[in-house]
Amino acid sequence: MKTVVIFSGGLDSTTMLYALRDQGHELRCIGFDYGQRHRIELQAAESIAKTAGVPYQGIDLSALGPVIAGQSSQVNPDVEVPDGHYNEESMKATVVPNRNMIMLSVAVAHAISVDFDAVAYGAHAGDHTIYPDCREVFVDAMRSVIGLCDWKQVELLTPYLHKNKSEIVLEGAKLEVPFGETWSCYKGGDIQCGTCGTCVERKEAFTLAKVSDPTQYLV
Amino acid sequence: MKTVVIFSGGLDSTTMLYALRDQGHELRCIGFDYGQRHRIELQAAESIAKTAGVPYQGIDLSALGPVIAGQSSQVNPDVEVPDGHYNEESMKATVVPNRNMIMLSVAVAHAISVDFDAVAYGAHAGDHTIYPDCREVFVDAMRSVIGLCDWKQVELLTPYLHKNKSEIVLEGAKLEVPFGETWSCYKGGDIQCGTCGTCVERKEAFTLAKVSDPTQYLV
Repeated sequence: MKTVVIFSGGLDSTTMLYALRDQGHELRCIGFDYGQRHRIELQAAESIAKTAGVPYQGIDLSALGPVIAGQSSQVNPDVEVPDGHYNEESMKATVVPNRNMIMLSVAVAHAISVDFDAVAYGAHAGDHTIYPDCREVFVDAMRSVIGLCDWKQVELLTPYLHKNKSEIVLEGAKLEVPFGETWSCYKGGDIQCGTCGTCVERKEAFTLAKVSDPTQYLV
Repeated sequence: MKTVVIFSGGLDSTTMLYALRDQGHELRCIGFDYGQRHRIELQAAESIAKTAGVPYQGIDLSALGPVIAGQSSQVNPDVEVPDGHYNEESMKATVVPNRNMIMLSVAVAHAISVDFDAVAYGAHAGDHTIYPDCREVFVDAMRSVIGLCDWKQVELLTPYLHKNKSEIVLEGAKLEVPFGETWSCYKGGDIQCGTCGTCVERKEAFTLAKVSDPTQYLV
């Protein structure tokens, strides 16, 4: 199967990339610059794809930044990235409006364009409480509309929809994913902060999975 | 109602803009540079929005061009724009893969971002035979997924889904739409060609509507 991977260079999409490669998919990665604060993830994505031997194409949609910024800490520089646990109400500040539909629609267009069979994205169970566009009901509706948007059929793969992050860490450990190269932190530093929602979730996932965490954190 | 209009400067979206303005909507237009061959439509869009007194924001997604070009004559410079009737099989060359989902997803993100209530786009009955993403079944599926992508509800307005282009011309004539400023042609010239599918459809619509066509065509 020929599959386009929506690739952020984070822990989830990197593990997904390694899993799909292991399953024999022919892969292409695309990464999105949508004006996000944590631009370092774009470098991580390119570098990891190179390590994995998969073609990577970064897509500059940074013009979207001011158009979709709203009150999102991830694209609006005036909104601070909240610290705390990933599932807290305060984490809603990190939601980028309709980000997943935008990325999926471009990935599907790319798959049609290069005659690939599928698009894979790494939404996972832990995302659901905060992010409306990681819920299964959203994914199912996207699958329907993707089936109707073109005469060519493109499959939507979401292998982690029912897995939590510690299960993803476990799978990644088996696949020898270079976790140390992956980037989760929502802040814009050179070293992952260890205190924002996604860093807290990442640390917790390694602890729960009983896998040694090679990540360097500020705190 | 506060409504974001997906605005191309074409006959359909311009008539829709005037109709929504007439109905008292507070409006914002967004236009997309997706690397299309007929870039002159972007200037038409900006100029018409100014005439109509509606804020216009162009969004530079031209980086999408090579990513989604495929075999589309509208973004791939190596594929010729076909001449002939809009409904012919050959017109499939003008389909830009998944263009409507991309534009709708960004428009919805913008509506969420600026706290608007609705997104309007001008898909019309005549588009259906060639463009999979103008069919009612696609629009219905988009409406579902838009209702799930965010905690905020954004309405999807498609007033022309069951109208053909001559009915749109008739409506536009009543609203005193500046038809002469609108741009349809799929080719990249300074004057609309009169022979590509969309020019042929445009001419036919004015004839069927018995409305005088102010457009200057090459042929």
